Amino acid sequence: MSTFLEQIEQQLQVALAEGNLESLRPVLNDEYPADLADALERLDLDDQYAVFQLLEPELAAEVLNELGAETTRRILEQMPVAEVGALLDEMAMDDAVEILTEDVSPGMREALLDEMEPEDAAEVKRLLQYPPQSAGLLMTEKYVRVRAEITAGQALDHVRKVDDEVETVHDLYVLDNTHKLIGVVSLRRIITSPPESLVADIMETDLVTVPPDMDQEKVARLISRYDFLAMPVTKADGRMLGIITIDDAMDVLTEENTEDILRLGAVESAGLDQPYFTIPLWRVIRSRFGWLLLLFLADTLTGNVLRVFEDELSAVVALSFYIPLLIGTGGNTGSQTVSTIIRGMAVQDIHAKDLWRVLRRELVGGLLLGAMLGVVALGRSYLWDQNVSLALVVALSVVVICSWANLIGSFIPMLARRFNIDPAVISAPLITTLVDATGLFIYLMIARLLLGI
Amino acid sequence: MSTFLEQIEQQLQVALAEGNLESLRPVLNDEYPADLADALERLDLDDQYAVFQLLEPELAAEVLNELGAETTRRILEQMPVAEVGALLDEMAMDDAVEILTEDVSPGMREALLDEMEPEDAAEVKRLLQYPPQSAGLLMTEKYVRVRAEITAGQALDHVRKVDDEVETVHDLYVLDNTHKLIGVVSLRRIITSPPESLVADIMETDLVTVPPDMDQEKVARLISRYDFLAMPVTKADGRMLGIITIDDAMDVLTEENTEDILRLGAVESAGLDQPYFTIPLWRVIRSRFGWLLLLFLADTLTGNVLRVFEDELSAVVALSFYIPLLIGTGGNTGSQTVSTIIRGMAVQDIHAKDLWRVLRRELVGGLLLGAMLGVVALGRSYLWDQNVSLALVVALSVVVICSWANLIGSFIPMLARRFNIDPAVISAPLITTLVDATGLFIYLMIARLLLGI
Repeated sequence: MSTFLEQIEQQLQVALAEGNLESLRPVLNDEYPADLADALERLDLDDQYAVFQLLEPELAAEVLNELGAETTRRILEQMPVAEVGALLDEMAMDDAVEILTEDVSPGMREALLDEMEPEDAAEVKRLLQYPPQSAGLLMTEKYVRVRAEITAGQALDHVRKVDDEVETVHDLYVLDNTHKLIGVVSLRRIITSPPESLVADIMETDLVTVPPDMDQEKVARLISRYDFLAMPVTKADGRMLGIITIDDAMDVLTEENTEDILRLGAVESAGLDQPYFTIPLWRVIRSRFGWLLLLFLADTLTGNVLRVFEDELSAVVALSFYIPLLIGTGGNTGSQTVSTIIRGMAVQDIHAKDLWRVLRRELVGGLLLGAMLGVVALGRSYLWDQNVSLALVVALSVVVICSWANLIGSFIPMLARRFNIDPAVISAPLITTLVDATGLFIYLMIARLLLGI
Repeated sequence: MSTFLEQIEQQLQVALAEGNLESLRPVLNDEYPADLADALERLDLDDQYAVFQLLEPELAAEVLNELGAETTRRILEQMPVAEVGALLDEMAMDDAVEILTEDVSPGMREALLDEMEPEDAAEVKRLLQYPPQSAGLLMTEKYVRVRAEITAGQALDHVRKVDDEVETVHDLYVLDNTHKLIGVVSLRRIITSPPESLVADIMETDLVTVPPDMDQEKVARLISRYDFLAMPVTKADGRMLGIITIDDAMDVLTEENTEDILRLGAVESAGLDQPYFTIPLWRVIRSRFGWLLLLFLADTLTGNVLRVFEDELSAVVALSFYIPLLIGTGGNTGSQTVSTIIRGMAVQDIHAKDLWRVLRRELVGGLLLGAMLGVVALGRSYLWDQNVSLALVVALSVVVICSWANLIGSFIPMLARRFNIDPAVISAPLITTLVDATGLFIYLMIARLLLGI
């Protein structure tokens, strides 16, 4: 809770002002990593490293994990390589992989691997072979493995012995002598079963496992779906590679959601996954300008459409007064559809094969919404201009544009998914921009036909 | 994984066609609740209840939890009240509360409470007193409680004896004789400590707890932040009320993210939190029409602005060709900012007190983006119309509109938060619509001043 954080911040301010940081050592080492990380993020650059050095290695490793990429990089740059290597050894190896791939240069990565304990370095190197965003990179090999032939009592003793070396003891993984996963048994089951019962008799054999190249978001949704605390990762032949724990799954879901929300707003999310105020402004500009420029250029199409209908617009000046209203309505309808479809795909309610079903549904929805809004438009336009034909043009345009926006807003994200593009990249503003130009065309064509100009 | 689901679906199709559902009973009762729920959602209405009846009570309760509101309601309607009451007894009480508040009528709720075991009904009634969306509604009172004076060995024996209904045994909660929470000790710690050590000596006393009226999303983010498997809920005086488990926290985060994405797209999310295809179309229309209408009416402002500048628009016809382009750019810039700010607030990087810092940052960002895009606009306009003054008007408008959109896009969500309105309700389309009218005004005022018309 934020009260912890405020306490730490206050104590840090006082200690820094008085110049006796050292006195804080016992206090800091008693805090939660996430709170310490937040407090560090808010300090001046010069103080960050000084405070970080006060932390015990195990805690320091956890804090490093919670820090944003920018701060991590700055702290690691100031630290002797050997110390960084030792810190990485303290971490869960999937976290070490994250730092080695995202926060340090490739040259530095090699140097650090040399400094790490050979066994850890070997695990990291194995993990580094998996593709970006894959389950493999989230894995830890430090889980409890037991044989099916031992008893519950023996399994409990085994847990006691390996405690220090593993990340979690909630589930025990039962492997055969070819290292194949044949069962899972929870610690709860081990404890509540008679000590002499065989693991083989109490283990769960209906297993859900994932391959190491599965997308991380998919794995996270499976963990959430089945209410697991960890998901085993196996090779195609059933051999056990490691486990992915629920805390990592939660982090993945949070990151994916950030990505979706930013992309829906046409912000490229790469490099923005850290606290708002710590992102350098130039990086924000870079993440936003590309999309803005592309959309700007696409929007110049609307100018072209208007030029094509120059005669109509000069003949009936009032036509131009409805332009922002109509493209606005098209854009809003499109945004609604994109949000709905993208969310439906993210939580896996909508699959690629559902394309036609989705289009039919959205077309009907668009027609209904358009009809309801068309009635309002008819009234509003007539009140404004007292021109029945014009009011009919506006109302009919609303109906067609709403239906069209619904179709585009569902078709394009689903098409993206088919080509394995993250549908959120096809952001709401892109759909809006597409609907702008095409909606204008629809409106002015209807005007040309109905008004006979 | 979907393979499980496909297997179930196939087997169901065959059994339903052959009319011997009964033969599936053992198979179904061996499946995961989430898979069964998905398979049920895809069946015809008539078959759903027939299949559901084959499930053992415990599994049936879990499946009910995973089903969408619509299907849950349909199944419960067909079931004798006494059976529903028994099913609710099987559930974690926070899940029973969810069904009783969201899926049945108030009258039905009373009838069901009468059918439940008195102890469970009493727990549900206690939980029902907490406000909607509050931590209290996610709580279970079925956790492991121990005294500080007992030994690790005694604690382990206690876990062995503990009720089947206890939801999780990963953490043991240490209460004093006034029922105050004084410590937490993990089962792992209990197992690995010498059996004769006192719980008082091995328990963690630096506790993070939440009050029962805290917002569910906040609690979920705290659970994720501290990598907890469960969060204790206490009264202001420290007395223990219950725990919230990580699987519920994950569900809350997923729901909140759905809500944010839909609201950002101007879709009111109430009632839409269920699989895409199972939501009746009329409900989708209802969730979308309100916002569309409001935005439509707001967008009629643009018509008023244009009418004010009718003289300028007739004098320089080319002015109107830039209208969609300029309001499009303003809308896109605004969407980017809204997405960034809303996400920053959701993950608690941005607090209400940061208002001025945020506005300053977004103003500078808007000016920079506007300047870069303004250069492009200058060139594009000059190529089109060969009119230097007009090109300058367009370019300057881009700069001012981008800055303005950035300000509006950050100010309004932050204002909403101050008044305790979910900032995502102030959706991207609303900001876009606001920027439409004001952006037009900015553009045409600049035209009036610079072109001297």
